[in-house]
Amino acid sequence: MREHHGAGESHLPAQWPDAVVMARSTEEVAEAVRIAHRLCVPIIPYGAGSSLEGQIHAPFGGISLDLSQMDSIMAVNPEDMDCTVACGVTRQALNEHLRDTGLFFPVDLGAHASLGGMASTRASGTTTVRYGSMRDLVLGLTVVMPDGQIIKTGGRARKSAAGYDLTRLMIGSEGTLGVITELTLRLFGIPETAQSAMCSFASIEEATETVVEALQCGLCLNRIELADAVQMNAINRYSGTDLPEQPTLWIELTGSSVQVAHDMALLRDLAEGSLRFDVAETAEAASKLWRIRHTALYAARALRPGIKGISTDVCVPVSKLPACISAILEVIATTSIVAPLIGHVGDGNFHLVLLHDPARPDEVEEARHINSNLIRIAIEMGGTCTGEHGVGLGKKPYLEAEHGPALDVMRGIKRALDPANIMNPGKIFDL
Amino acid sequence: MREHHGAGESHLPAQWPDAVVMARSTEEVAEAVRIAHRLCVPIIPYGAGSSLEGQIHAPFGGISLDLSQMDSIMAVNPEDMDCTVACGVTRQALNEHLRDTGLFFPVDLGAHASLGGMASTRASGTTTVRYGSMRDLVLGLTVVMPDGQIIKTGGRARKSAAGYDLTRLMIGSEGTLGVITELTLRLFGIPETAQSAMCSFASIEEATETVVEALQCGLCLNRIELADAVQMNAINRYSGTDLPEQPTLWIELTGSSVQVAHDMALLRDLAEGSLRFDVAETAEAASKLWRIRHTALYAARALRPGIKGISTDVCVPVSKLPACISAILEVIATTSIVAPLIGHVGDGNFHLVLLHDPARPDEVEEARHINSNLIRIAIEMGGTCTGEHGVGLGKKPYLEAEHGPALDVMRGIKRALDPANIMNPGKIFDL
Ligand SMILES: Cc1cc2nc3c(=O)[nH]c(=O)nc-3n(C[C@H](O)[C@H](O)[C@H](O)COP(=O)(O)OP(=O)(O)OC[C@H]3O[C@@H](n4cnc5c(N)ncnc54)[C@H](O)[C@@H]3O)c2cc1C
Ligand SMILES: Cc1cc2nc3c(=O)[nH]c(=O)nc-3n(C[C@H](O)[C@H](O)[C@H](O)COP(=O)(O)OP(=O)(O)OC[C@H]3O[C@@H](n4cnc5c(N)ncnc54)[C@H](O)[C@@H]3O)c2cc1C
Repeated sequence: MREHHGAGESHLPAQWPDAVVMARSTEEVAEAVRIAHRLCVPIIPYGAGSSLEGQIHAPFGGISLDLSQMDSIMAVNPEDMDCTVACGVTRQALNEHLRDTGLFFPVDLGAHASLGGMASTRASGTTTVRYGSMRDLVLGLTVVMPDGQIIKTGGRARKSAAGYDLTRLMIGSEGTLGVITELTLRLFGIPETAQSAMCSFASIEEATETVVEALQCGLCLNRIELADAVQMNAINRYSGTDLPEQPTLWIELTGSSVQVAHDMALLRDLAEGSLRFDVAETAEAASKLWRIRHTALYAARALRPGIKGISTDVCVPVSKLPACISAILEVIATTSIVAPLIGHVGDGNFHLVLLHDPARPDEVEEARHINSNLIRIAIEMGGTCTGEHGVGLGKKPYLEAEHGPALDVMRGIKRALDPANIMNPGKIFDL
Repeated sequence: MREHHGAGESHLPAQWPDAVVMARSTEEVAEAVRIAHRLCVPIIPYGAGSSLEGQIHAPFGGISLDLSQMDSIMAVNPEDMDCTVACGVTRQALNEHLRDTGLFFPVDLGAHASLGGMASTRASGTTTVRYGSMRDLVLGLTVVMPDGQIIKTGGRARKSAAGYDLTRLMIGSEGTLGVITELTLRLFGIPETAQSAMCSFASIEEATETVVEALQCGLCLNRIELADAVQMNAINRYSGTDLPEQPTLWIELTGSSVQVAHDMALLRDLAEGSLRFDVAETAEAASKLWRIRHTALYAARALRPGIKGISTDVCVPVSKLPACISAILEVIATTSIVAPLIGHVGDGNFHLVLLHDPARPDEVEEARHINSNLIRIAIEMGGTCTGEHGVGLGKKPYLEAEHGPALDVMRGIKRALDPANIMNPGKIFDL
């Protein structure tokens, strides 16, 4: 139990908590936090443990506060297209629950994750290009503050100009400012039609150009994902497919059927220079196409069986993608590391899986070298060291370069709200 | 000068600053703030002075820091659909500048306002139902903190999970946490087609029902605005029109021409129960229709010449609008006040202009009575005391009811970032 709660999906060595506490209600969370506050013991909120940067590690020991049993869906309001859920509900469980309403919650990520954890890491996914990330889709929260006080932020109104945006302050704070126990979320109507296509290009530049134009034209994009040639090779080996081993886009358009048909024709024009443009003609073909996309990480890992790799995650302005990618490919070429690339290209966000053996110091050093160069390049281009995976322990060294003196403002907020530093200490930044 | 800088568009009695300082650059702002910090003198940022709740008043005197000369547009990046502007640039000036790019900035409000002021009040407008508010459309900021330190928040990446969301913390903070000197904003492609309609209903319920259905169906709404019968009467008198004096929706659909045509037909079906459904067949007809909408405030005020009125601003879950409106109409009926209603109904946001003579204590008391009841009702329904105008001095008394203990968390942040309380003191909450 402690072992499981001290590692998650991260590539970093495990650091166990001293104890795991299961909470079943906001009141129980408040009680646990109050006790920890009195005894000055670290509290590490635990959603589903899928975070990738050591967010749930316990470098100072303390209590892992497991929220997975807080899984009730308190309200669904179809008229207002919102719902209120406890923090341990997964997005899969929520969408299952919504099945008969014609509504869905769009943040769609590659893991089994809790909505509280997703808010805490400011998660996003393939449909963020259309619907936004957790930042955009949370209307309000119930939060247990570091002193055990229970507060509500936001509400059910679509917008408000009443005071500081505590909702957004909590989102992305990775459990360092309090425990989110309930979330009110926006929902959306399931679009009438979806149509998907896969197309391959001679270069990353040409693929990116198509993405920029599709965004500028306001096509009804629901997803637009990019893989590089190395990733396509990994997919072919893993899935037994024989897709072109070239930069490839997966695209999904959704909306009314007239609109989807209209925009798909336009997209085909925009992608004129592509080597291949395959529209999935049936629902089965479409779901096969997306299944291939979703195996990408496993396919990447299978290139070196038994090896997890670092899944890095930078985000740059979309137009900078080709330059950013070619600069990092040059760095990778100077090492022995294989690093398939895949990303949510509509947001300028991409991941490299840096396949290396953690038992071999030379490979560890090479992977670290690639990662830190990638981050430096992304920040120089106006981007960020993490588009969606968050900071945890893994990205801490890079925040100074990204935020400069703004990092001290973050520290000031942390000190004001958690003076005893009990909430997930050692994460995001050192005090 | 001082007089002009101590009143703005608010209904509250003017409170002058001791001096007005014009700043032309981030460095000059930092210099002014550093001096004020040393001398412990209040600094009140001033954008265009259009705020409605006494945000630019100087209850403790001090310096009004006029930012209107910081009006340069530093960068427009069509490929990434973003731009960086100085805080004094107005949205009109920005859109004028963008004219040849095919791009625009969508937050569209009823006043001549600066983008820095709009961010600071978390402004929104008629197109927020489609594009979101300032909260959603700012990628990054340059901010002078209360000690004169210059920081950058966010960046140019579409999303980031790197640390606390200082951008969103500054947005809506009404100059109490620092001075925003530059903004990086998202831009959008101008849609191919727009089509507008006006339709009247027998009741607010039926109008709202049409709105809920249009939202659920995901129609390509760009604007959806509601006026009540009193407001329509005011418009007819003011504009010499003879529109039905019934609850009325103004609707604009934008997108590709196939999509707009398709969705307009659907909308007509949804609005089946309407008394009248008039599609603007020409561009002139459409702009006339929206001109009528935009005179609404002036038309309302013209019901009592020489009287400004309080322009209140609540926001509730859309489905609660009929109940909220009918509850407040009952309250209004017990007073002598005339109060036309108009609102951004797609967001559940509406305004009442409470026409009263500030020289008559009985009317002042009646207006206050209506306003406080409206806010109570809205908060009870899960809504907020202000959807877009902000808190300033006018809405301060209501934040405790809306936020409860969360208000103390806001105070904690203010104290941590501005311990000397020099930034726009006395606004949003008392310390
Ligand atoms: C195969 C795979 C694919 C992935 N794909 C994506 C992707 O597409 N997009 C993406 O954004 N991420 C992705 N991730 C990363 C991960 O799924 C996200 O970071 C996710 O949001 C974590 O949610 P969780 O419930 O597992 O949180 P946990 O890992 O349990 O916790 C994450 C952090 O949030 C804190 N926390 C958790 N719950 C709460 C709470 N209720 N209140 C306060 N703090 C809390 C924890 O203390 C910790 O700091 C992927 C991970 C894997 C393994
Ligand atoms: C006729 C009319 C119609 C309106 N319609 C709308 C509408 O549709 N939607 C809407 O949201 N509002 C509306 N408003 C209200 C007003 O226009 C908004 O509040 C607007 O955002 C204020 O911008 P400003 O530049 O005038 O700011 P100001 O009034 O100058 O300042 C507003 C607040 O922000 C602070 N501030 C200003 N600039 C900065 C800066 N650079 N850094 C830090 N703090 C700063 C000030 O200290 C003050 O607290 C309307 C007002 C009128 C008179």
